[in-house]
Amino acid sequence: MERRVLYPGSFDPITNGHVDIIERCLEVFDGVTVAVLGNPKKDPLFTTKERVDMIRQLFRRRAGVKVASFRGLLADFARRERIRVVVRGLRAISDFEYELQMALMNRNLAPDIETFFMMPNVKYSFLSSNLVREVAILGGAVDDFVPAPVAQKLGEKLQAIKNPKSK
Amino acid sequence: MERRVLYPGSFDPITNGHVDIIERCLEVFDGVTVAVLGNPKKDPLFTTKERVDMIRQLFRRRAGVKVASFRGLLADFARRERIRVVVRGLRAISDFEYELQMALMNRNLAPDIETFFMMPNVKYSFLSSNLVREVAILGGAVDDFVPAPVAQKLGEKLQAIKNPKSK
Amino acid sequence: MERRVLYPGSFDPITNGHVDIIERCLEVFDGVTVAVLGNPKKDPLFTTKERVDMIRQLFRRRAGVKVASFRGLLADFARRERIRVVVRGLRAISDFEYELQMALMNRNLAPDIETFFMMPNVKYSFLSSNLVREVAILGGAVDDFVPAPVAQKLGEKLQAIKNPKSK
Amino acid sequence: MERRVLYPGSFDPITNGHVDIIERCLEVFDGVTVAVLGNPKKDPLFTTKERVDMIRQLFRRRAGVKVASFRGLLADFARRERIRVVVRGLRAISDFEYELQMALMNRNLAPDIETFFMMPNVKYSFLSSNLVREVAILGGAVDDFVPAPVAQKLGEKLQAIKNPKSK
Amino acid sequence: MERRVLYPGSFDPITNGHVDIIERCLEVFDGVTVAVLGNPKKDPLFTTKERVDMIRQLFRRRAGVKVASFRGLLADFARRERIRVVVRGLRAISDFEYELQMALMNRNLAPDIETFFMMPNVKYSFLSSNLVREVAILGGAVDDFVPAPVAQKLGEKLQAIKNPKSK
Amino acid sequence: MERRVLYPGSFDPITNGHVDIIERCLEVFDGVTVAVLGNPKKDPLFTTKERVDMIRQLFRRRAGVKVASFRGLLADFARRERIRVVVRGLRAISDFEYELQMALMNRNLAPDIETFFMMPNVKYSFLSSNLVREVAILGGAVDDFVPAPVAQKLGEKLQAIKNPKSK
Repeated sequence: MERRVLYPGSFDPITNGHVDIIERCLEVFDGVTVAVLGNPKKDPLFTTKERVDMIRQLFRRRAGVKVASFRGLLADFARRERIRVVVRGLRAISDFEYELQMALMNRNLAPDIETFFMMPNVKYSFLSSNLVREVAILGGAVDDFVPAPVAQKLGEKLQAIKNPKSK
Repeated sequence: MERRVLYPGSFDPITNGHVDIIERCLEVFDGVTVAVLGNPKKDPLFTTKERVDMIRQLFRRRAGVKVASFRGLLADFARRERIRVVVRGLRAISDFEYELQMALMNRNLAPDIETFFMMPNVKYSFLSSNLVREVAILGGAVDDFVPAPVAQKLGEKLQAIKNPKSK
Repeated sequence: MERRVLYPGSFDPITNGHVDIIERCLEVFDGVTVAVLGNPKKDPLFTTKERVDMIRQLFRRRAGVKVASFRGLLADFARRERIRVVVRGLRAISDFEYELQMALMNRNLAPDIETFFMMPNVKYSFLSSNLVREVAILGGAVDDFVPAPVAQKLGEKLQAIKNPKSK
Repeated sequence: MERRVLYPGSFDPITNGHVDIIERCLEVFDGVTVAVLGNPKKDPLFTTKERVDMIRQLFRRRAGVKVASFRGLLADFARRERIRVVVRGLRAISDFEYELQMALMNRNLAPDIETFFMMPNVKYSFLSSNLVREVAILGGAVDDFVPAPVAQKLGEKLQAIKNPKSK
Repeated sequence: MERRVLYPGSFDPITNGHVDIIERCLEVFDGVTVAVLGNPKKDPLFTTKERVDMIRQLFRRRAGVKVASFRGLLADFARRERIRVVVRGLRAISDFEYELQMALMNRNLAPDIETFFMMPNVKYSFLSSNLVREVAILGGAVDDFVPAPVAQKLGEKLQAIKNPKSK
Repeated sequence: MERRVLYPGSFDPITNGHVDIIERCLEVFDGVTVAVLGNPKKDPLFTTKERVDMIRQLFRRRAGVKVASFRGLLADFARRERIRVVVRGLRAISDFEYELQMALMNRNLAPDIETFFMMPNVKYSFLSSNLVREVAILGGAVDDFVPAPVAQKLGEKLQAIKNPKSK
């Protein structure tokens, strides 16, 4: 039996912390399906397609990685994909409470699906997509926080927002 | 002397966790005044009147329960109602900090009013109106999380939002 | 019906924060039974009798205050006293988690007893019996942290420990 | 490849919360090795052998469950057992911080071993071996908190401590 | 060498808690540069200029206090000002996590700049600009929470918002 | 005026995290007085003298570093040393609450002394003297967690404990 895990998130954009979690999952599971949330509450910086494409590009040579987007309930998507383990990264207490609440709600909605929590490398413990976007918008360098192709896309995207005509 | 407590909140909508707190209050106090916040920061899903009506309907046969809406400071409303005990449910750390801050602010504004914190049944510890709304919007069943009439109203409300003409 | 609450603790010794909670309870309930834990895990500085006597002395002119010691489960003691509301002070997160755990355990052992949490005056938010003992042992003045008779007893007790003969 | 996880702990004694975690692991992994810590800091109530025997007895009909005790570093034991995934239950914030610290230390000592965190059923979120022991010592019933054979052993053990001659 | 610290924030408006931190810094450092964030995420109530002016007015007689606004990354502003110590007030856990995340990000962006955390007077531990604005909007008195000139400006500002013509 | 800070602790033994905090202080202050607590609650592994000597040895070539031991209240020691700034490292929430409590108590005992909190390098965020001792006792390598001379002393100390005769 293939043991594949689901790693859901907004990935707006994917950071080195996310990449680290995916790599750790590949070490101990047969595969990872990265599930990009297609209906985030806030306006995302990158479109769902852009976010999926960036992740696909990064892992195009890793056999076990699939990338997909989903709408609706995570529990429904997991069932459609026949995956029973959801993986979430934990960095801080604030993460922890929100994640616990979501995992308990998901357990109510789909008792056969289990959520596992992992820690990224401690050097990424302060990283979040929000913070990366914020630093980039304020003109800071984000090369240490996201993979190189993501840093480039981020630069292009912010350039396009500043100069809408040249888009 | 009647010992009545004030249970304030947005109740957008009321959940089984809220109902549990009200029932627990009725066990140890003479009455509960449920105070629906009429000026929430965010756009509520249900109007103030709808939220008041739903709670009234649920407790129409419980002698000690009054339901009212209020605007302005909670401390002012409590004084007008001549109630000295405010009750708040505590689920998680994040609740706790916010609730502490509000309770301390209220104590500054009205030193004669005391805030008491209670825990809902542990099986509701992950429930929040926000999460219930979110699950309902994504098409999930919320029957385990809110009383049946509330689940029905929630379905109708979301239907009305999707098909504005038929409203 | 008299509405009396139970305020349990080690009170080794009682601090201004404890006194503040008792006073707040007296404002909104008919009486407070201060329940001194007779079987603490650690060796107490003051004997159970000394702790009971100090609290009785402090509140000897307050009609609603009873002081008792108990052994065994708090839930059993509350039932024997026919008190349905237990009050606990909350200062910090670490309190909160422990208190929640105890309250949930107590609810399991005695579903008819409810735990309410209160905040002491914010100026006592850092106070604990442990810290007061520690400061006193290191030679610091504790007059701002405990009632005057308690500060005196604490001085005598520490003197007696230093000079066991004169005891 | 067999995918087996290591579930380490003191299990003094095993609670329904621990049993719940083991059952959840069996749903998504091929097997669970329950690793009983043979050198706890504090004096345990049950000997290492008693703790191992109780768990073995409970799971004697579950094919995937192995029970062993270990001394020394968890990372060394995991390597000897050729298991790469350690599972830990998370209930509360205080758990979380300690667990994070241990997991990060273990990752330093053995980078090839990954720690996954799971939540027990929310109804066990307040349970701990410490609390169960404490309630039992104070004369409370623990039948809701531990499996029946464990409750019986706990009664016998406390009886034996009270009446050392009859031991 | 002059030892000056940077105290950044939104200060929308400055509260007694902020004033307390500035005074504490002046006790142990040579000077404080209050850095008003010119590009906050949310629409501020007061313009950047208004916020800078209010703080300047409050400290116009304190030699060591400079007030400036900045845009972009804090780390860049600190470098331009040749200040190596950033000071932030800590009140609660939620603060703490966010502050830690920001401080770690800033350390990545500018390893030569160090963040120090201080506690305001415990009596201000529940105060925040957000809460002050909220209370003022709901018609509560904020005289205990902000300096008198700020309370007055806040009243004028809210009056101007209610009656836009008279502005 | 020399700006010297006090860095108090048990340092049983000093870890790379402590060293990191001292180095960071030296970057922004004129000097650091490392204050070794001579009356810890628990039995230390190293004597006060051994702990002082290890730290002195490590910093013997750093001009600004003084090492001393103290008994009694930190506030009294700071005053005797005429130092007004106490520095403490913050790693996690549990640290935070305890540190806040101590800092508030110290502020009560000595209002003229201010406590500043700093973060060690994030790679040391899981390190503590307790954990280092525990790993060493269980036979793990601690070379990544403490300076080389400390690792050696730790090995010798544990050897001496195992073979008391050869001591």
